[in-house]
Amino acid sequence: MEKLHLYLTLYQKPLSFWELLKVTDAYGSDLINLLNQELNSKRVLYKNYKFYLSEKTRKETKPFYHPDLKSEYDLYLKCVKQRPEVNELFWQDYLSPESVLTRVKFLISHADIQNKRVLILGDDDLLSIFLAATGLPKEVVVIEIDEAVLDYIDSVATKHKLKIKTISYNAAEPLPSNLIGKVDTFITEPVETIFGLKACLSRGAQSLVPNGSLYFGLSRIDSTLKKWYEIQKMLNQMNLCITDLVKGIGKYKDPKAEPEYYQHLFLSKKINFPLTTPTLDFYDSAFIRCKAVGKAKPLIKGSVKFNKSFYQDNSVMTMYLDKE
Amino acid sequence: MEKLHLYLTLYQKPLSFWELLKVTDAYGSDLINLLNQELNSKRVLYKNYKFYLSEKTRKETKPFYHPDLKSEYDLYLKCVKQRPEVNELFWQDYLSPESVLTRVKFLISHADIQNKRVLILGDDDLLSIFLAATGLPKEVVVIEIDEAVLDYIDSVATKHKLKIKTISYNAAEPLPSNLIGKVDTFITEPVETIFGLKACLSRGAQSLVPNGSLYFGLSRIDSTLKKWYEIQKMLNQMNLCITDLVKGIGKYKDPKAEPEYYQHLFLSKKINFPLTTPTLDFYDSAFIRCKAVGKAKPLIKGSVKFNKSFYQDNSVMTMYLDKE
Repeated sequence: MEKLHLYLTLYQKPLSFWELLKVTDAYGSDLINLLNQELNSKRVLYKNYKFYLSEKTRKETKPFYHPDLKSEYDLYLKCVKQRPEVNELFWQDYLSPESVLTRVKFLISHADIQNKRVLILGDDDLLSIFLAATGLPKEVVVIEIDEAVLDYIDSVATKHKLKIKTISYNAAEPLPSNLIGKVDTFITEPVETIFGLKACLSRGAQSLVPNGSLYFGLSRIDSTLKKWYEIQKMLNQMNLCITDLVKGIGKYKDPKAEPEYYQHLFLSKKINFPLTTPTLDFYDSAFIRCKAVGKAKPLIKGSVKFNKSFYQDNSVMTMYLDKE
Repeated sequence: MEKLHLYLTLYQKPLSFWELLKVTDAYGSDLINLLNQELNSKRVLYKNYKFYLSEKTRKETKPFYHPDLKSEYDLYLKCVKQRPEVNELFWQDYLSPESVLTRVKFLISHADIQNKRVLILGDDDLLSIFLAATGLPKEVVVIEIDEAVLDYIDSVATKHKLKIKTISYNAAEPLPSNLIGKVDTFITEPVETIFGLKACLSRGAQSLVPNGSLYFGLSRIDSTLKKWYEIQKMLNQMNLCITDLVKGIGKYKDPKAEPEYYQHLFLSKKINFPLTTPTLDFYDSAFIRCKAVGKAKPLIKGSVKFNKSFYQDNSVMTMYLDKE
């Protein structure tokens, strides 16, 4: 557990040891070691069985405390309305704004963006705009293949004075060297082929500082149990441990504007029954948080072929097929 | 995805393909294969873009459909009031009844108890009583070290005509041979040492039928990130894949009746500050659901030593120490 997480928790109000255990969801021994150390250095004080911040710590913590996301969410909603159209070439689709909001709250609750260097691989969801608008991260970097998305993020960043660094990047290429081992929190909503996942998660692993956090989305609609298991094996090999797996905050908006869209999905070739347009957000991608146990180890460092197998396999049911 | 899960979902009302995807949280290709097959055999029918059950399927499904847990929960609440006292010798403590209720609902939503053979390793929570009271499982078996718990479950089972089989068992011993490869759903809330977890999860893995479900609780208070990672590695080695990880439904009741209780916890030796009695349920054990990918492989089959290292290590902060 890192200091800032403790400080941010105590910034709101003094808490007992038991309350801290519950609220921070900390590993018990980590919390105890940290409290002992912080009491010793007098950065945290203890009175009437409650921990509270020293005046100095309180002052230092203030810039990273952020109780309310209303104005940021309003800005985000405005920005998503004007974003570039979906580019099926890059397997894009948008998370619902409500899901993005819940994810941002989740990231904040784990102290994973406050004073952190955040890297987002693929950002058609425009999460970078939301995160930068909070002013909490030390830096937000987007690596993304689609120039239209990059241009749009740049234009919003300029207009609203947001600190976002955008880099044109294909996940099949090696990670830019200045990002290796420099990132506190990596976030991606990857393509769901084994091959694509291996590349995307490896880029993330390679970007992380020791004990960094890695977030990714994974659906059941486009992945089988066997694929989930393969990914679990990859995470092990990369020194990444799953700490959280949250369903219901990875929803995509349906129906799409064009009803014919659904007839072009891969699943339409697999079903023996006629398909109608959905009347609900049927797609949910689980949001999985991992922590690097020490230094994360990427399984892929070099270039890989960017061909069909990167973004399509037999279980990716919502793959959009070209009109044939 | 198994048939009964689909039938139970459609028993409530006809659903579209998209609704089924969302409600069942199914792997997409599994659901499609199953629907194709069920339409073909006419056990499931399709009209106006909605799937529904044939009359015959409906009749066969009825015994396993259970919309309401009110009377079972009332019985459970009555039973927990009279249960044997905690035996610290066996590292016992009770899940709150609300948590048990939520867990039962979770098990039902995954169709993991309906018409299933369920094995519970260690049942001071009396989950077996709740499950058997629903009448849904094919069989409920409890393996447990504490004779007082076994006797109590037996007496409740006799009084209320519940089908529960109880077996006196220490997790350090080999699994009874008649349970090997016979269990659909295994549930345990294990001791949180690496050694104890390895034994308990191995017994579970060995008990499972191919593609069976295994549930276990794991806290952050008593386990470090490193331990979580070790467990993730074990799961891989055992062909077990995490499908769900739910926090907030593994709460233990606090404060305990005796305030001195907390002074006897291992953590009291680690902290440099005085401790007070908790005023909230601070302990939460994540409820983790795994599926066997094919046949699960236990890491331990034989006897292991049942000594201190089975139930105590340096990170089990809430270990109760004998009065010294």
